[in-house]
Amino acid sequence: MAVLDSWRDGPTKTSIVEFVDRAVRDVAPEERIAVFDNDGTLWCEKPAYIQLDFLVRRLAEQAAAEPALADDPPYRAAASGDLSWFGDAVTRHYNGDDSAMKTLAGAVLSAYAGLTVEEHADRVAAFFDDAVHPTLGRPYTSCGYTPMVELLRYLERHEFTNYIASGGGRDFMRPVTTRMYGIPPERVIGSSVGLDFADGHLTTTSTPEFLDDGPVKPVRIWGRVGRRPIMAAGNSNGDIAMLQYATAGRGPSLALLLRHDDGEREFDYLAGAEKSLDAASTLGWLVASMRDDWVTVFGD
Amino acid sequence: MAVLDSWRDGPTKTSIVEFVDRAVRDVAPEERIAVFDNDGTLWCEKPAYIQLDFLVRRLAEQAAAEPALADDPPYRAAASGDLSWFGDAVTRHYNGDDSAMKTLAGAVLSAYAGLTVEEHADRVAAFFDDAVHPTLGRPYTSCGYTPMVELLRYLERHEFTNYIASGGGRDFMRPVTTRMYGIPPERVIGSSVGLDFADGHLTTTSTPEFLDDGPVKPVRIWGRVGRRPIMAAGNSNGDIAMLQYATAGRGPSLALLLRHDDGEREFDYLAGAEKSLDAASTLGWLVASMRDDWVTVFGD
Repeated sequence: MAVLDSWRDGPTKTSIVEFVDRAVRDVAPEERIAVFDNDGTLWCEKPAYIQLDFLVRRLAEQAAAEPALADDPPYRAAASGDLSWFGDAVTRHYNGDDSAMKTLAGAVLSAYAGLTVEEHADRVAAFFDDAVHPTLGRPYTSCGYTPMVELLRYLERHEFTNYIASGGGRDFMRPVTTRMYGIPPERVIGSSVGLDFADGHLTTTSTPEFLDDGPVKPVRIWGRVGRRPIMAAGNSNGDIAMLQYATAGRGPSLALLLRHDDGEREFDYLAGAEKSLDAASTLGWLVASMRDDWVTVFGD
Repeated sequence: MAVLDSWRDGPTKTSIVEFVDRAVRDVAPEERIAVFDNDGTLWCEKPAYIQLDFLVRRLAEQAAAEPALADDPPYRAAASGDLSWFGDAVTRHYNGDDSAMKTLAGAVLSAYAGLTVEEHADRVAAFFDDAVHPTLGRPYTSCGYTPMVELLRYLERHEFTNYIASGGGRDFMRPVTTRMYGIPPERVIGSSVGLDFADGHLTTTSTPEFLDDGPVKPVRIWGRVGRRPIMAAGNSNGDIAMLQYATAGRGPSLALLLRHDDGEREFDYLAGAEKSLDAASTLGWLVASMRDDWVTVFGD
């Protein structure tokens, strides 16, 4: 029987299949835990994080509702559709200038304050009902990578349990992970702000809780799962710790790093992945080339 | 077919069965989430929390290894087996005197610092391999309530998914919840200290993370599950918020509060449950009497 049809035959696919075979032989089903980064691993993260689009719409909405915000840089940028301001803020932060990032962080944290978790989920669902990727022209819900979704199903058929462990917002991903990936809300680990409980309901606050990236990923995986995964898949420096974690146990394990080298069908970029590619080469992680190893990116 | 055999026929059992029937009719299986407190709801919490026994052994071990600790009150009390010191610290805390509690909290938080999560789990497993309840004379692993375990299985047969949401330590419960309750580690929500990630491994720190009690319970349930439960079971004031949460959604729901009124077979106490019993009476929660509603407590 053909397996992983959307993966080209070759060493990458063979390594995955051989790992799964070893796991089936040597690892009890309840220990077959696989964790997947989301942005750039399960769905597109270029030209900007999908969640940034959701956020910018919210900031524009807030600016329209509250004129006092209109001159505040992030709201002004959002209202005018100037997405480059947000990218610049991040770049300046990495270059040691935190002024814009601080303003941005405040806006991000307060964006949903006061909404119940159900109201927030409804907004996310409404966003995904009609938002379209700005350059690919396809609905965001069709921006998941077909070979990765096929891999999720392949793992499940071999009694793996899949989790998402993403720097993206936990409650931003949950409303779509079931239909896009077959991963239910209880298996979505992500960044979060604090919640308040009153009168039977949970309300979003503006207090940061977890930034689920780098070494926080293994900590949150243990907190949520209570087991060390035996497989992890990622695509950037923020996934290094999680990939190390999955491969530092006893028994079979697999660290899979996606390389975004397909400018034709997706995007071709190295920025943010340099250290993870170095680690892959030093530590023998499996690197999958989107250009060479995938028959299709989006399945159409 | 007889159901819930360890529950006496009567209004309590009927209410449970009728709720489950309504849920099966009106609630999609993936939304059939039930959350259970642990101490006093699934297992005994008297004369002291089981986790306190585990902790005191650790403090005694630390005092023996490090003579400088021997005069520090919690270690001295642990070394001499003076469990009443710990109860007094808590009572004094509730009476506005925090001095002993602060010392205790420092000892509690640092008790496992530096151990990997696997080493901690091994210690917990070793503890449960031979520790025995001080007055009931039975292994702690036989201190789970048979009618509650039967209820867990009954819910599962009706496609509920059960979680523990306890003030007890997440990583203290996990090594035994599968065999005692059929609840795997990923469905155990509890208090935790922070973890550090380095060199592929997670190590326990002395930084508090969550005290999973009161209004924190609903926050953590959402964080872990991403759904509002439709059933919650508890036995104390610390469960009020969780019981409110489970019953504030749309559709069928059940809040079940255990009353510890069986001095013969278990323990008879109200302390710490007064507000929850008031809330049950005001809000119409189902109160189960361990004396009147249970055929057996421990199944023997």
